[in-house]
Amino acid sequence: MTINDYVRDRRGRVDLELDRLLPAANVPPSTIHAAMRHSLFAGGKRLRPVLSIAAAEACGRPFGSVPAACALECIHTYSLIHDDLPALDNDDLRRGKPTCHKVFGESIAILAGDALLTAAFRILAQLVEPSRMRVELTAELAAAAGTVRGMVGGQVADIEAEGKPPNAREVDYIHLAKTAALIRAAARFGAICANGSHDQYDALSEFGRKIGLAFQIVDDILDEVSSSAALGKTAGKDRSQNKATYPALYGVKGSWRRAGQYLDGALKALDGFGDEAWALRSIANLLVNRSN
Amino acid sequence: MTINDYVRDRRGRVDLELDRLLPAANVPPSTIHAAMRHSLFAGGKRLRPVLSIAAAEACGRPFGSVPAACALECIHTYSLIHDDLPALDNDDLRRGKPTCHKVFGESIAILAGDALLTAAFRILAQLVEPSRMRVELTAELAAAAGTVRGMVGGQVADIEAEGKPPNAREVDYIHLAKTAALIRAAARFGAICANGSHDQYDALSEFGRKIGLAFQIVDDILDEVSSSAALGKTAGKDRSQNKATYPALYGVKGSWRRAGQYLDGALKALDGFGDEAWALRSIANLLVNRSN
Repeated sequence: MTINDYVRDRRGRVDLELDRLLPAANVPPSTIHAAMRHSLFAGGKRLRPVLSIAAAEACGRPFGSVPAACALECIHTYSLIHDDLPALDNDDLRRGKPTCHKVFGESIAILAGDALLTAAFRILAQLVEPSRMRVELTAELAAAAGTVRGMVGGQVADIEAEGKPPNAREVDYIHLAKTAALIRAAARFGAICANGSHDQYDALSEFGRKIGLAFQIVDDILDEVSSSAALGKTAGKDRSQNKATYPALYGVKGSWRRAGQYLDGALKALDGFGDEAWALRSIANLLVNRSN
Repeated sequence: MTINDYVRDRRGRVDLELDRLLPAANVPPSTIHAAMRHSLFAGGKRLRPVLSIAAAEACGRPFGSVPAACALECIHTYSLIHDDLPALDNDDLRRGKPTCHKVFGESIAILAGDALLTAAFRILAQLVEPSRMRVELTAELAAAAGTVRGMVGGQVADIEAEGKPPNAREVDYIHLAKTAALIRAAARFGAICANGSHDQYDALSEFGRKIGLAFQIVDDILDEVSSSAALGKTAGKDRSQNKATYPALYGVKGSWRRAGQYLDGALKALDGFGDEAWALRSIANLLVNRSN
């Protein structure tokens, strides 16, 4: 199996499961379910869920991690919907399609984000996993999505850094909190769902943190050097909004070098895993060596 | 102990616990924690948490329900912050103070709501309760705050009913979903935290649903007949926005009568409880016979 076949297969399972877990678009009040599904099924890469499934497989338990993985995607999608709002990044385009508020209006977009955030925790509570495991996943997800070194904290730091001269410590905080926290949670979800050892949990945490940082650096670089058509979202926004980014600090070449170093570190964290981690390793490479 | 002393005492415990559970206002990024605390400590009545504590006491277990009760208040406060946004109800005043977005701006207000919603589930995951109980609370809260007969679903139905002729079935759906679902969850939280019997859980569910409906009817009436100064929020908004309300359907007098019928039904649901339910009964009376 090639890594492309692997990703296609796991993404397909995630899509099916998301469709099963979320209320159908005709369940009343139908507008909100249509809005949630508009953003959830807009052709996302499913990076976080696929990563968490691959992490569970790396721990030697190949199945059962798909529903938990869907909660990660609900959180990610809610954050995109709210991030795109006029009061935040004011973006019209996401994954090549009109953003939620462009189609459904601001009020429904705000509520659709709230609903996906809520649905993520509902999904975790309803897993067939033992209660102890469900509580661990809930704590992990809430921390990764929260304000203290979590996603919302990163978004706030990102907003507050706009227009100021870029500062290395601040940019690292923003990347860690805004992006790496949820990607690390995805890797940890794999360890938790697979009932992995403490060593496996720690190694996957390290892997997730580093690959999350590399991923965000590449995101910053692509925003700087790519076209909107290639990205499926508005390119060049970071510079026009004076965002605190890696290219602003280290230039494009220096940023690629640093992304490569984080990738190397992430792969090294997987040294204790055998061949079962092949997909995880390949995905790490794909995430850094990508063009959109 | 009078009911006023009781409510003051339990509210004080909730306030202390909320202060302990939420990051301090100087934890970075401090803006978001200041914004969360601005709305959380704006002098709310703490109806939902106090109700859930009283419900736990009615089941004969007087302590241990305070932290879980705080999760209910986080959900309620997040919903107020988002509801007050310009894209939704566009309100400048809440609990007699400027709304979150008036003080911190729209972007931070959106994120503060997201953060409180996330914090609610983090609080539940971190309870000392057994895992099974924490999962039950999480499932209950996520359903009550969700889209299918839950709070967000009610808000969407509320928005969609604006400007149309009021319709009894729709108004009932809105009241049940927007308000009664979370109040019923509060009553159920009490049963779950107290490890109550199935009968107690069912009776408290019935109580919560009916008192939730009565509460929202009185809210609609007060919006119609009170001043903004008395309410601590903008009065007369329902009529000016052509909202689907009880007074629009049944007039003020007919609405009071219906609120009284729901109160009677709620009290009847508590017939199987003894004197331990005195506070719950008294709170029910207070909620309907209030002026703000």
